[in-house]
Amino acid sequence: MLSIEKYQEEFIAYLDNFSTCKEPKNLYNPINYILGLGGKRLRPVLTLMTADIFSGTYKSALNAALSIEVFHNFSLVHDDIMDDAPLRRGQSTVHEKWDVNTGILSGDAMLIMAYQLFENYEPIVFQALAKLFSKTALEVCEGQQYDVDFEIRNDVTITEYLKMIEYKTAVLVGAAMKMGAIVAKASVEDQNNIYEFGRFLGIAFQLQDDYLDAFGDPKTFGKQVGGDIIENKKTYLYLKALEFSNESDRKELSQLFASNPDDVTTKIEVAKQFFVSTGSADATKNAIQEYTKKAFTVLESLNIAEDKKQLLKSFGNNLMNRTV
Amino acid sequence: MLSIEKYQEEFIAYLDNFSTCKEPKNLYNPINYILGLGGKRLRPVLTLMTADIFSGTYKSALNAALSIEVFHNFSLVHDDIMDDAPLRRGQSTVHEKWDVNTGILSGDAMLIMAYQLFENYEPIVFQALAKLFSKTALEVCEGQQYDVDFEIRNDVTITEYLKMIEYKTAVLVGAAMKMGAIVAKASVEDQNNIYEFGRFLGIAFQLQDDYLDAFGDPKTFGKQVGGDIIENKKTYLYLKALEFSNESDRKELSQLFASNPDDVTTKIEVAKQFFVSTGSADATKNAIQEYTKKAFTVLESLNIAEDKKQLLKSFGNNLMNRTV
Repeated sequence: MLSIEKYQEEFIAYLDNFSTCKEPKNLYNPINYILGLGGKRLRPVLTLMTADIFSGTYKSALNAALSIEVFHNFSLVHDDIMDDAPLRRGQSTVHEKWDVNTGILSGDAMLIMAYQLFENYEPIVFQALAKLFSKTALEVCEGQQYDVDFEIRNDVTITEYLKMIEYKTAVLVGAAMKMGAIVAKASVEDQNNIYEFGRFLGIAFQLQDDYLDAFGDPKTFGKQVGGDIIENKKTYLYLKALEFSNESDRKELSQLFASNPDDVTTKIEVAKQFFVSTGSADATKNAIQEYTKKAFTVLESLNIAEDKKQLLKSFGNNLMNRTV
Repeated sequence: MLSIEKYQEEFIAYLDNFSTCKEPKNLYNPINYILGLGGKRLRPVLTLMTADIFSGTYKSALNAALSIEVFHNFSLVHDDIMDDAPLRRGQSTVHEKWDVNTGILSGDAMLIMAYQLFENYEPIVFQALAKLFSKTALEVCEGQQYDVDFEIRNDVTITEYLKMIEYKTAVLVGAAMKMGAIVAKASVEDQNNIYEFGRFLGIAFQLQDDYLDAFGDPKTFGKQVGGDIIENKKTYLYLKALEFSNESDRKELSQLFASNPDDVTTKIEVAKQFFVSTGSADATKNAIQEYTKKAFTVLESLNIAEDKKQLLKSFGNNLMNRTV
């Protein structure tokens, strides 16, 4: 087993090699651009790590890892168009640097290239990877659609919200790990359990994101603290605060999340006070722990050595104690 | 072997059954809508017909045929956004009836669903279909990008134009037929030859489209006659007219194709006169025949009975003598 940093390094070297000078340039340059913007490379590292855990040959999982990363970046390119986002990782988004049409078409090409990255696997592995990939990719689309639908709905339930983040974020983490297990020819039982581990961890990760967006340290948190509040996003924090409020508070909070004041500082402060006073902030922290615990429970049932379980556990703990 | 109409019928029945009530509705309703808009269903019929020609079991090719049709409609949804087209087959385009974001996301889902339609084939057939599909789909994206790039270029050559229509249109016709051959377990030689047949026919088909757009009968031609001229599209007719013009004519024609006059009738008439007087109209008719002939020459080398070759030949001839 390598260290997380070493997996990242190996992955980035492989990714750099993938960067293409193919024609037409207006199709492929934006792809090189978005893939080169950086990021934690969390998903592909999980694919490599999982392959190593089950067979010790992470190199055979490099194409699967790259497929996951290409797909993830495809979804960022199309999501950024839909959200009209100007920045991604502190740089211009593809549709800002080029235009919307380029973003659509380059994104489409990336989705196809993600499938092509499975082509060098033998037919049975190829089919297993492609099936998992299609199921996951479609769920990510469904999650994105729910996210869009929720923007104009005022009756979103916690259950619906959890399903949305599961589809939009968590299933891809589960799939990234399961792909490593497929390539490593792990048993179907282990494949499914590692998927569940990733899925639970992915939900915890997204809830953590919601929490940090409001309560993160501006010095270490990469994005603007309070961004979700400014955009009136119905996150777990908001939905739980509504649930725990009495009628008059509920009305006030709803109105706050229908407003677009010039003074965002006050809005953020008021919202955060609601999150704390209603107990929603604590409930969110509890939910993060709860899903992390679910992930760790699944871990126990994996047919792997104890030290490898500890490795996955410390990876999960690091993720949940992050400040960025 | 069935008649073309019967293959269409069988395909449409299968397509109707595919129509889904899955959630979220805002993702899947647009997919049902665009797939239900009709059209000639040319590509899936070719898949079924080819499967029957090689093995007599078109039913086993229904999923591959549907995949081709779903992909074709995916490309229409995204292209219509890029072209800002209000109408498709006389009805509202998806991004007009819903919005651009819905068009992007529903299109993405269709691309994934096209891959899923291969999942019931055995691993080796699955991999062959998915590989061909990815290669073709990426070429279609590249063709679309060349089409976009050509809009602002004034030095597009005939060779470049032919490559663009080959990628944007013809390779999918070739792939549709090759998929039928793959499912029918035809020899690799036959698979490649039927692909070439479809590719040549596809180029002839698109050149025919260019020709009909200017010289079609308004009574039978589905779209507005002269549409390409109004939009200053650098079609084969235009590029050949430039090639055959003297310097002053070339200047006049270029200026005409940089203009956006209110009186489109005169513009169309002047352009058509150029196409006829320069010999470009005849050259286009010759090119259509040339590519049709290339297709028929490849046909000879197929290891199939003579009557089946005749069937494909009459299909090709019908396509080239169409008025719509």
